[in-house]
Amino acid sequence: MSSIFGQLFRITTWGESHGGGVGVVIDGCPPRIPLSEDDIQPDLDRRRPGQSEIVTPRQEEDRCEILSGVFEGRTLGSPISIMIRNKDARPEAYAEMKEKFRPSHADYTYQAKYGIRNWQGGGRASARETIGRVAAAAVAKKVLAAHIAPGLEIVAYVKSIHELIAHVDPDTVTTAQVESNIVRTGDPRAVEPMTARIKQARSDGDSLGGVIECVVRNCPPGLGEPVFDKLDSDLARAVLSLPATKGFEIGSGFAGTRMTGAEHNDPFEMDGERVRTTRNYSGGIQGGISNGENIIFRVAFKPTATIMKEQQTVTAEGADTELTARGRHDPCVLPRAVPMVEAMTGLVLCDHALRHHAQCRLPDHPESAAG
Amino acid sequence: MSSIFGQLFRITTWGESHGGGVGVVIDGCPPRIPLSEDDIQPDLDRRRPGQSEIVTPRQEEDRCEILSGVFEGRTLGSPISIMIRNKDARPEAYAEMKEKFRPSHADYTYQAKYGIRNWQGGGRASARETIGRVAAAAVAKKVLAAHIAPGLEIVAYVKSIHELIAHVDPDTVTTAQVESNIVRTGDPRAVEPMTARIKQARSDGDSLGGVIECVVRNCPPGLGEPVFDKLDSDLARAVLSLPATKGFEIGSGFAGTRMTGAEHNDPFEMDGERVRTTRNYSGGIQGGISNGENIIFRVAFKPTATIMKEQQTVTAEGADTELTARGRHDPCVLPRAVPMVEAMTGLVLCDHALRHHAQCRLPDHPESAAG
Amino acid sequence: MSSIFGQLFRITTWGESHGGGVGVVIDGCPPRIPLSEDDIQPDLDRRRPGQSEIVTPRQEEDRCEILSGVFEGRTLGSPISIMIRNKDARPEAYAEMKEKFRPSHADYTYQAKYGIRNWQGGGRASARETIGRVAAAAVAKKVLAAHIAPGLEIVAYVKSIHELIAHVDPDTVTTAQVESNIVRTGDPRAVEPMTARIKQARSDGDSLGGVIECVVRNCPPGLGEPVFDKLDSDLARAVLSLPATKGFEIGSGFAGTRMTGAEHNDPFEMDGERVRTTRNYSGGIQGGISNGENIIFRVAFKPTATIMKEQQTVTAEGADTELTARGRHDPCVLPRAVPMVEAMTGLVLCDHALRHHAQCRLPDHPESAAG
Amino acid sequence: MSSIFGQLFRITTWGESHGGGVGVVIDGCPPRIPLSEDDIQPDLDRRRPGQSEIVTPRQEEDRCEILSGVFEGRTLGSPISIMIRNKDARPEAYAEMKEKFRPSHADYTYQAKYGIRNWQGGGRASARETIGRVAAAAVAKKVLAAHIAPGLEIVAYVKSIHELIAHVDPDTVTTAQVESNIVRTGDPRAVEPMTARIKQARSDGDSLGGVIECVVRNCPPGLGEPVFDKLDSDLARAVLSLPATKGFEIGSGFAGTRMTGAEHNDPFEMDGERVRTTRNYSGGIQGGISNGENIIFRVAFKPTATIMKEQQTVTAEGADTELTARGRHDPCVLPRAVPMVEAMTGLVLCDHALRHHAQCRLPDHPESAAG
Repeated sequence: MSSIFGQLFRITTWGESHGGGVGVVIDGCPPRIPLSEDDIQPDLDRRRPGQSEIVTPRQEEDRCEILSGVFEGRTLGSPISIMIRNKDARPEAYAEMKEKFRPSHADYTYQAKYGIRNWQGGGRASARETIGRVAAAAVAKKVLAAHIAPGLEIVAYVKSIHELIAHVDPDTVTTAQVESNIVRTGDPRAVEPMTARIKQARSDGDSLGGVIECVVRNCPPGLGEPVFDKLDSDLARAVLSLPATKGFEIGSGFAGTRMTGAEHNDPFEMDGERVRTTRNYSGGIQGGISNGENIIFRVAFKPTATIMKEQQTVTAEGADTELTARGRHDPCVLPRAVPMVEAMTGLVLCDHALRHHAQCRLPDHPESAAG
Repeated sequence: MSSIFGQLFRITTWGESHGGGVGVVIDGCPPRIPLSEDDIQPDLDRRRPGQSEIVTPRQEEDRCEILSGVFEGRTLGSPISIMIRNKDARPEAYAEMKEKFRPSHADYTYQAKYGIRNWQGGGRASARETIGRVAAAAVAKKVLAAHIAPGLEIVAYVKSIHELIAHVDPDTVTTAQVESNIVRTGDPRAVEPMTARIKQARSDGDSLGGVIECVVRNCPPGLGEPVFDKLDSDLARAVLSLPATKGFEIGSGFAGTRMTGAEHNDPFEMDGERVRTTRNYSGGIQGGISNGENIIFRVAFKPTATIMKEQQTVTAEGADTELTARGRHDPCVLPRAVPMVEAMTGLVLCDHALRHHAQCRLPDHPESAAG
Repeated sequence: MSSIFGQLFRITTWGESHGGGVGVVIDGCPPRIPLSEDDIQPDLDRRRPGQSEIVTPRQEEDRCEILSGVFEGRTLGSPISIMIRNKDARPEAYAEMKEKFRPSHADYTYQAKYGIRNWQGGGRASARETIGRVAAAAVAKKVLAAHIAPGLEIVAYVKSIHELIAHVDPDTVTTAQVESNIVRTGDPRAVEPMTARIKQARSDGDSLGGVIECVVRNCPPGLGEPVFDKLDSDLARAVLSLPATKGFEIGSGFAGTRMTGAEHNDPFEMDGERVRTTRNYSGGIQGGISNGENIIFRVAFKPTATIMKEQQTVTAEGADTELTARGRHDPCVLPRAVPMVEAMTGLVLCDHALRHHAQCRLPDHPESAAG
Repeated sequence: MSSIFGQLFRITTWGESHGGGVGVVIDGCPPRIPLSEDDIQPDLDRRRPGQSEIVTPRQEEDRCEILSGVFEGRTLGSPISIMIRNKDARPEAYAEMKEKFRPSHADYTYQAKYGIRNWQGGGRASARETIGRVAAAAVAKKVLAAHIAPGLEIVAYVKSIHELIAHVDPDTVTTAQVESNIVRTGDPRAVEPMTARIKQARSDGDSLGGVIECVVRNCPPGLGEPVFDKLDSDLARAVLSLPATKGFEIGSGFAGTRMTGAEHNDPFEMDGERVRTTRNYSGGIQGGISNGENIIFRVAFKPTATIMKEQQTVTAEGADTELTARGRHDPCVLPRAVPMVEAMTGLVLCDHALRHHAQCRLPDHPESAAG
């Protein structure tokens, strides 16, 4: 189940960084959704390498091809297979990695687990794997818009880079604002210092981490399930399955542990017919189920493991050695991780929306006694 | 799938706070493991109410009964059903909750999702649900000890209560140290101030949150899977499915976002035949797979939602109102949450150990060419 | 996953023939369905031992207890745990089986697989395990009636016992007709010869098999899925998971292999607004999906393995020996298997109905372009 | 889950008859298995169209491409994506089917379920979908050979065509014998009459059905699980998910219902160290678990639904009409279905072998008390 995600809107991703390509198969997509490559490509363009001066220069067009599941411009309800060929692969840049484990990469653990690994560019652990997720999420968002919540919005943005913190209002920030700058932060004043800081890290041969915040607006109440499949725990699992992540918090998060219950509880009040809370330390989810308020969470990304400095490591044969990385890479993954966080969020919401519909939105038959 | 957890060591929990009881069915347990109620009861006793002066006074013996799956003292390989009857239920204490939604509880979201809820004591959202998890985890730990990693240790402890921080060495802290005090912290100097702080919160009619840290020692390398079922993302999902959790971080966590790659990467070195890292910002997991170092993570718990102060809320009929909680509850959930965190950790590790064994530990047949 | 069945309406059964009891946990049941033990007990009574002179005399009341998931007479949407205690267990009757494998039972294969087995009364392989299925199916049928197809009818009946064949019209046979006789056939003229034949087998110390036919009427079109989860393949798996089954066929079945396409195809015609077929060799399912015609299938049951004659077998230690069975048993399982076949059918239909609803019955939002 | 099959060796197939192509993604394959396209192509060649004078003349090379999961000739443990492009598609031949439902095809039920269908060549219901299964099964068989049972053999063959019955000894029939004739029967004397009968049906514009028998030799005891995932019920589901199937029986099957228990039970005897049965009415599976004897089952295939005769049907708009099929098709699917039956068998056995290994073949640690 390693590469399968979701219960009803279920995706299987495949592919390594250096191989025939990467892709995804979506099983369980509702039928009759208008869909073409044009619906998917914009999100792929947001996550592709080479898009700006602060990301990896690897040149990949990442053009997607829909191979099945769509007919005359609409989904059939059958599996949607989407493929993206690898183009600008340079395995020779990784020859040294064949023999040496890169620190804080997955080289050693893959070898320990499988007894074999594709040492070219990180193989399955490469962020190229996320292409399939982003492509599938573009479809998930179309399902959400068509059937479940036309006004639902998912906006992620860089909240911090290293010690630089952006000030963003999650209630109002727009995708246009985030996309207006190459850092993908929602705070105009943070763009320049963050850009400069990333460039400095690159010229130092070093790398940076940071925090991405994500807000979901206009999510209907009732999504998520009690106990094991809570909406927040599923969101955590989803975004923490992205490379380089180290933490997740929702609503008040870790800071909330330093409040008292009287300070932290979100009082209810009526807003016309609608039940609202007067504040939102819950982060839009209570007891694992969305309450209709904005869902707000943050994800910690560590500094990129690939750096241009000499590091201590060991060989596959078990000898101490040194390694200085080559290959193209991002000095800071956050700008390209923004669409990945949005993608995982969209996949979780779509899946839970279908699950909620299946269990709790059945028609009551007039002939029956249930109601 | 809301109440089913795991892929191979698969548990189904059931039960509400006020009903016939709570329990769990374990499907997929390996056969021939010695097992009796005596193996399970100690962990239940650690999480049961009424165990000390700083937890809820509800009196429940929480005596477990194994109904199936064990024969002549050993597991059969068939489902193990474990039941615990509810005894000290006082639904009358919750009469007011029938009409009013408790702030930051699951009352409103359950009603919004299902159109019905058991308003007695939180129903399915009650921490009583975790009894089944703790019981199942006692079995999981026996499986780990018998077959996978006899020396594997899982130790959780209170790392902070509100603003009080414990100083604990994860490499050496023992269960005996944690169990020696009612707060369940591993820092002897923190016991008294934390106990006093919790008592103060209770007398104020208020509540507190905090952070639990968990360490897994002697975990073999290779557990966990790339992509969606990373060991860390599955641990996050597992512990964030516990009530009152708001955040998860592994290794360097959120603090790691303020380091550079050169500071953060964990260099490898040989330790005899064994590949080790010279530090452990990775938290024992790289690329989603255990690397043999200690697995270390932290979980944020919010202050208990039930407080004895008047709060603003709404009725089920949609009118603004006030509520002052009654019923028995914990002013701080952390002491009782320690065994729950350990339980979810044990369940994840056992499941991933079986999965790893299935895919990567097949015997090589001498007649075959593989190897 | 051995004891978990279904994707959305998901059941976990547990229990051995001789142990604390047997039961089931239903996960994913829609909320607000009226439910009490009285809805379940009648189906349990139809499958319980001791109900007539042609079944096993084991005395079990099989009284069910709902432990969770129901509140004030309606389902909560949370797991429904149902337990039935074992009462009239006589393990001493099975002492010989501790040492000897009963021919054509599961004794040897359980031992070979698990290295341990509960040798008392068949353990997990006993038909007592089906109690949980029948209980869960009573709930599934309530879901179908309340929400999906109020007029849906599932009627199974004995089609043949050994060489005696009943003549039953699947379009009109009623449950009342089937329940009016202890054989549970729908053909009044077959009752006496079948009853006599079963009594003769018992007095001979021998046993009989036969065929059960099942019809589903008023099933809406669209249930089932292409490829792996075809409605007919899932029905086959479901009923062939019952003890003593050896074959399944739908519609024309094996006899259809001796027809030509021109003879076998079911022509379509309009019946008012409704698409119908003029005959039904398809058995109500085409391409894995229900077409609205009656679903008709047959299940082969072998003669009961427990017989009162001396048989050649081996001991657990690997020596040739003889065995003459003791213990109480059915000379012919078919009368009691009729409600089991109906139960598995109800579980499959309910699960597929929820799945169909989730993928294909989403509301079209007026603001969206999909339709 | 419609297009996902298996629990541990898990495959996702995709593709329609007329579209970009068809394919499969295998998740959970053990690492280090030698694998290339050359291991897969022979099985694809056995099922491809145009291979002989008695199958459809559609010209498809069905050349497979492995896109991921293999590195330097061995499996990585990551998902293996295999793609086959469609080439000789002639959608114009199906223009009439856009408006008319073909009798006993899936046209109507797909339309009823999804509100849309790919009317070109059957879309997802086409037998082209099985390419992915056959490709995945070639890998499954390599896993079985490398790790689980090097001597395991799966041989399927045509047992009957219409009323012509082949006489084949399941204990000795070889793949070479089956492949030596275009009918794929194991009985040399049946080849000519069966070939002639199929040619006659084609010239009549009619079609034929029949029965395929499959034997598995040298299957180790212990595969399969009690209750819902019995090896026989999973085999039934697997082969009944193939197009045109109407029935399944194992061992004595439906004929066994006319035997008594004394006639039908399989006595045990010792054969050296090995427990054997003196006959095999059980068909190699008892209580859902393999017993080490040959697994023998039969599958009923209906006559091909596509015939060249005028048939009564209705239009998508709900009017009565007539239809005479065009397009290329098989007058009898059985010769090409033989490798499909073997493929599904291989997939089930590989999956159950991994599951058995995970639960029942764990190493006993010397430090532990289990054994």
